[in-house]
Amino acid sequence: MKINTWFGSLEVGSGGEILAFDLFPKGIRELALRSLSLRSSRENLPPEGFDLKAAALECGFVASLSEYYSLLHEVTLEAAKLQVSEAITPDQRIVQAVEALDDINETTNSLSERLFEWYGGYFPESGLVGEALALFIVKYGSRENVPPDDPLYLKARDSMGAKLETADEALLKGFAESVCSLYSRRKQLEAYIESSMEALAPNLTTIAGPMLGARLISIAGSLEKLAAFPSSTIQVIGANKALFKHLRARAPSPKHGVIYSHPFINTSPWWVRGKVARALAAKISLAARIDFYSATKDLSLMGELEEKVRKIRAANPKPPQKRQEGRGKPKKKRRK
Amino acid sequence: MKINTWFGSLEVGSGGEILAFDLFPKGIRELALRSLSLRSSRENLPPEGFDLKAAALECGFVASLSEYYSLLHEVTLEAAKLQVSEAITPDQRIVQAVEALDDINETTNSLSERLFEWYGGYFPESGLVGEALALFIVKYGSRENVPPDDPLYLKARDSMGAKLETADEALLKGFAESVCSLYSRRKQLEAYIESSMEALAPNLTTIAGPMLGARLISIAGSLEKLAAFPSSTIQVIGANKALFKHLRARAPSPKHGVIYSHPFINTSPWWVRGKVARALAAKISLAARIDFYSATKDLSLMGELEEKVRKIRAANPKPPQKRQEGRGKPKKKRRK
Repeated sequence: MKINTWFGSLEVGSGGEILAFDLFPKGIRELALRSLSLRSSRENLPPEGFDLKAAALECGFVASLSEYYSLLHEVTLEAAKLQVSEAITPDQRIVQAVEALDDINETTNSLSERLFEWYGGYFPESGLVGEALALFIVKYGSRENVPPDDPLYLKARDSMGAKLETADEALLKGFAESVCSLYSRRKQLEAYIESSMEALAPNLTTIAGPMLGARLISIAGSLEKLAAFPSSTIQVIGANKALFKHLRARAPSPKHGVIYSHPFINTSPWWVRGKVARALAAKISLAARIDFYSATKDLSLMGELEEKVRKIRAANPKPPQKRQEGRGKPKKKRRK
Repeated sequence: MKINTWFGSLEVGSGGEILAFDLFPKGIRELALRSLSLRSSRENLPPEGFDLKAAALECGFVASLSEYYSLLHEVTLEAAKLQVSEAITPDQRIVQAVEALDDINETTNSLSERLFEWYGGYFPESGLVGEALALFIVKYGSRENVPPDDPLYLKARDSMGAKLETADEALLKGFAESVCSLYSRRKQLEAYIESSMEALAPNLTTIAGPMLGARLISIAGSLEKLAAFPSSTIQVIGANKALFKHLRARAPSPKHGVIYSHPFINTSPWWVRGKVARALAAKISLAARIDFYSATKDLSLMGELEEKVRKIRAANPKPPQKRQEGRGKPKKKRRK
């Protein structure tokens, strides 16, 4: 009978005597890797009651019991390290990227505003904001450097902005460079999220789009958790404040959370948004489950959703009529 | 009698008749510049009741009254623009730089934390934070690239962090580059503020240091406003929350605001900090006034302050004894 152990593979007779053995080299890392692969394959494990210590001594793998225990300790420690290092799953990496993107967005916006205000004293007529302004400043610095073939030349020449001193120009250029660097970082992160989402969750990406899908995974914590959410939860994810206000007081329940950014919802007229959100959330939930449990791309999902949304819109062509005020008896006041 | 007008200089006889004239060229900008310099020099202004319109017509500067008015309109508009463009004073520029620095600090901290958390999954043992971590990531990326002569080599080799995929490595390197760019921006801004403060407010810079001085100007809004503040205000600037709590409720009055960052205060034992803060605020107020009104460097200020602080510390070598509890009659409760 063949037996695989953490220190070697043995050929054991029916009475438990060792007929032949093939010991592994004594490197900690190699032993740890072998023990991990043994743990996952579970092939030829020793039978119940088999004395591994005695076998290791008998084969001459270790000279004493204390050596056996100290070696086993080191190998299991190393194996645990190896396992930890594999704990960063693809969806964890997407979550990290989404969180980094959120940070970048926030900082880029605040620094862009500062740049706008700061440069506004020197060239208030530019009409540029955000990345365009940062690129303009990196390119020209002072408005005096705008060449005659630039569309902003006339505005720059006749601007009522102050003269930009050399020291301030260097400062503003550097600041604008940092802002540009953040903008390009944003694009890089978005591209990464898009390609990773296509690989990790193709169905979710088709239905929700890469950025919204990634955001849903990020809020849920992992694709597994998102797949376990009921679709009603997916519908209001991200609308925490409105949801708790609804649960606590008499506020209306939120119709949509982060899924509002989906074009099916935000291009719909307001009176069908709730219905579309419900249909979309149901399909997102389905897509996440397919992605997590089978990882095959289901091409019919998107068509079904489009059909459903089309029907909802067709069935509700006009806004609902407002309830007439003052009809019937007045509302009862809730007792406190 | 010589008369300077916005369109030229005239030689006028005692009866008001024009004997000779020297007209300026008809460029709007040149005329505006001349009218501004005339406004500040106030030399040879026309006497009361002198008819400028008639003189301009008589000299042939304009052909009609309507031309006179339209030209005057354009020139005064241009002069106003020129004045606006000179409205960014040196202290305004420092205020802008301080505000930009605050934004940079905030964003750098939040992105650094994100980088630390993100890279922590791949090399938790690095022990690096902030700029050092960002520089490390830009240099090496994955911990596998750390060469044997780097002090972190052993830690990197035996790390239990996950393996860094190529796509994630590019992402992390880019993120770290942006963080480095922000760190270098911070240094650039600090250097700018230091050199500008030395030029604008040498006494304030000597007493408070460039960064604290710039912050005080920034909070006050300008050097002029800071010079107008009583020293008791300077003492608690930046401690708004504590001050209003003190004014509203029975909280103790704050001892120091942003001036707490001055080494005289934060290296003093706690029981003299209030006294030192009062002395420091008085000298800061004095320094700001000298800077604004005379702009000469007063070398005796710092010596006086050092002497004062030394005396305060010598007179209070020990913490005050706490009041014994339960002595005498109980405190009266305030009626509401």
